[in-house]
Amino acid sequence: MNEMIILQHGSGGEATDKLINNIIFKHLRNDILAEKHDGAFLDISGKLAFSTDSYVVSPIFFAGGNIGELAVYGTVNDLAMCGAEARYLSLSFIIEEGLPIADFEKILVSIGAAAERAGVQVVTGDTKVVERGKGDKIYINTSGIGTINPRSDIGIRNIKNGDVILINAPIASHGMAIMSQREGLRFESDIVSDTQNLNFTVQEIIEKFGDKIHFLRDATRGGLASILLEIVSSSRFGIQVSEEKIPVDNPVRNACEMLGLDPLYVANEGVFACIADKEIADGVLSILKAKNKSASPIGTVTTEHAGKVIAVNPFGGRHAVHPFIGEQLPRIC
Amino acid sequence: MNEMIILQHGSGGEATDKLINNIIFKHLRNDILAEKHDGAFLDISGKLAFSTDSYVVSPIFFAGGNIGELAVYGTVNDLAMCGAEARYLSLSFIIEEGLPIADFEKILVSIGAAAERAGVQVVTGDTKVVERGKGDKIYINTSGIGTINPRSDIGIRNIKNGDVILINAPIASHGMAIMSQREGLRFESDIVSDTQNLNFTVQEIIEKFGDKIHFLRDATRGGLASILLEIVSSSRFGIQVSEEKIPVDNPVRNACEMLGLDPLYVANEGVFACIADKEIADGVLSILKAKNKSASPIGTVTTEHAGKVIAVNPFGGRHAVHPFIGEQLPRIC
Repeated sequence: MNEMIILQHGSGGEATDKLINNIIFKHLRNDILAEKHDGAFLDISGKLAFSTDSYVVSPIFFAGGNIGELAVYGTVNDLAMCGAEARYLSLSFIIEEGLPIADFEKILVSIGAAAERAGVQVVTGDTKVVERGKGDKIYINTSGIGTINPRSDIGIRNIKNGDVILINAPIASHGMAIMSQREGLRFESDIVSDTQNLNFTVQEIIEKFGDKIHFLRDATRGGLASILLEIVSSSRFGIQVSEEKIPVDNPVRNACEMLGLDPLYVANEGVFACIADKEIADGVLSILKAKNKSASPIGTVTTEHAGKVIAVNPFGGRHAVHPFIGEQLPRIC
Repeated sequence: MNEMIILQHGSGGEATDKLINNIIFKHLRNDILAEKHDGAFLDISGKLAFSTDSYVVSPIFFAGGNIGELAVYGTVNDLAMCGAEARYLSLSFIIEEGLPIADFEKILVSIGAAAERAGVQVVTGDTKVVERGKGDKIYINTSGIGTINPRSDIGIRNIKNGDVILINAPIASHGMAIMSQREGLRFESDIVSDTQNLNFTVQEIIEKFGDKIHFLRDATRGGLASILLEIVSSSRFGIQVSEEKIPVDNPVRNACEMLGLDPLYVANEGVFACIADKEIADGVLSILKAKNKSASPIGTVTTEHAGKVIAVNPFGGRHAVHPFIGEQLPRIC
C-alpha cells in the first residue's frame, strides 16, 4: 500500500478495492457494510429524520477533535435536533491526492470511535480522490437516518409565548479553537473545541418531557446569534436573551475580546438551544446541568418584538442582535 | 446577489441565507425542504435502502449531462440496484469560491428536473464554500433513501450456476464523452454520456420477475469489467462473457481504439448488469430491449472457473479479464 493517497485510489479499480478492504474496513466494520453493495439494506420502522452535512473544516486536526469525529457528531446532532435517535450514517470522502495514509487512518479511527460513542452504524460509503490543488486534504460528507422518538414533536410551529430558551454548554469554543490554531495564536490557556455528540442528552430530555420540548437547534456555523435569528424569522415571536446568562468560558471570552469578535457569532459543535414550555424549564435545566454545570436558561420567547432578537445587558441596556454581515471565519466545520 | 459564489455564502450568516432562500429554493422546493430544519422529517415504512455518493466529475458540464443530474441519477441508480424505489435525496454542495452563480443555477435546474424525472424529492441539504484552489468549481454529495420492493431479493448470495447476465445499454459512452471533452478531442460524431435514471426500468423488471432477479449492479467507475470482477470475488462462481454480445456504439468503439482503451474498463452512468434466473432471461431482455434495442445477454454464471471472469472472443479464443491496474481516468463521476 502506498503511504499517500494517489488518484488511483479513487478510480474504481484495484487500488480503490485495496483502500476500501484493507484500510477503511479495518477501522469500520459491521454486517451491513460487509455486504459491499451499492447501498445498505436497513430494517427500520417508525417516522424518520434524514440529514446531511459536508465537512470542510481546516485544519483537519484541531485542539479537541478532528474532521472525522466532527463529521459523525455533526450529523448525529442534526438528527437529535429533529427529536430523532440517530441510527445509521453514510460516509463519503473526497480526498486530495497526497494525503498521508497515516492521517487518513487517524481520521478513520476517530470516526469509528465517535460512531460507537454515539451509538450509530456507518452502513454505506463512497471514496473519491481529486488532484492536488483541487481539494484540501480531505472533505467528508455524512448523511444520517434516525428514528423519531414518538414522544417528541419538534417544530418551529410549536414555539409559544413565554417559552424558555436554554443552552447546554458555554459557547464559542469550537470557533476559537479553530481560529487560534489556524492563525498560530497562543492564548494563556489552550482553547479546545466543544465537538461532542448531543444525542443522549436530547433523548433524556425528550423521554422525560415529550412534546413540552418545542424546538431544538444546534448552534454551529454562525453561532448562537444566527440560530436565534433564524427562529424569529420563521416564527411569529421575538426572543429576548440576557447577555450575562450566556455562558462563555473565560479563555474563550478573552480570546474573542483580543480579536474583536462577538462570541454570539462564533461557531460551536456541541452547543444546542432548547426551547421548552416554561413549566418544565427547571427540569430541563437540571438534566443539562448534570452534563455541564454551565448550562443555563438564557432567555424567553415573547410576543413583544416579533421577528427580533433583543439582548439585555447586565445594566438593563437593550440592543437588537443583527445578522452577521462581515467576514465570518470560513471552513469552521 | 453577487454574480459569483464567495466564501461568505458558506459562512452561515446572511449571505448563506440569501443563497439558500433566493437561489437554491427557487429551483428546489417542496413541503419538507420548506421546513428548513436541520433534518427532514419523513413518513416512510417498510425495508429501506440507503446509499451515498460524492460527485467530483470534471468538467462539470459535459456532452449529455452535467454534475447535477449525474448526482441525482447516480444515487437513484444505486438505490435501484438494491431493488429499492428511490424516494428521498439529500443534497450537499462543496463549492469553490468564484463559481459563477449562473453555473450554479444551471446545475440546480438540472437537479430539479432530474429529481422530478426520477420521482424523488430533495428533502434536506447543506452548502459549504471553500477557497479558490481548494476545490474545483463544485462537488456534490447526494445520499438517498428508497423503499425496497417487497417482491425483490437482491443479493450476491442469490446468484446461482447458469444465471444469465444481461446489460441494458451500450457501454463506455460516459467515460469517452468525458475524456474526449477533457482532452479536447473531436471524433467524427460526438459522443454523449449515457447518464440516465434506471429506476423505472428496474422497477418494471422486479415487479414482473420478483426474486428471480438475483443481483443488480450499475457499471460506473471501473466499467463493466470491474463490476463483473467484484461479483466473482464475492461469490462462489465464475462468469463467462461473450465479447461480441457486449454492445458498444461504433463512435465509442472507434474512440477507444484510437486511444488504446478497452471499453470494458471505461465508466458508464446508465448501464447496469442484471443477473437473472435463466428461466426469465428472455423476459428481462424484452423489457430491456423496449428501452434500448442494444440491450443484450452478455454471459452466464458458471461453476467452471470460480473467481474468474473469462471473455470469449468471436473466434472462440478465451482470456481472463483482469482488474485494471494502470492509470484510470480520474474524476469520471
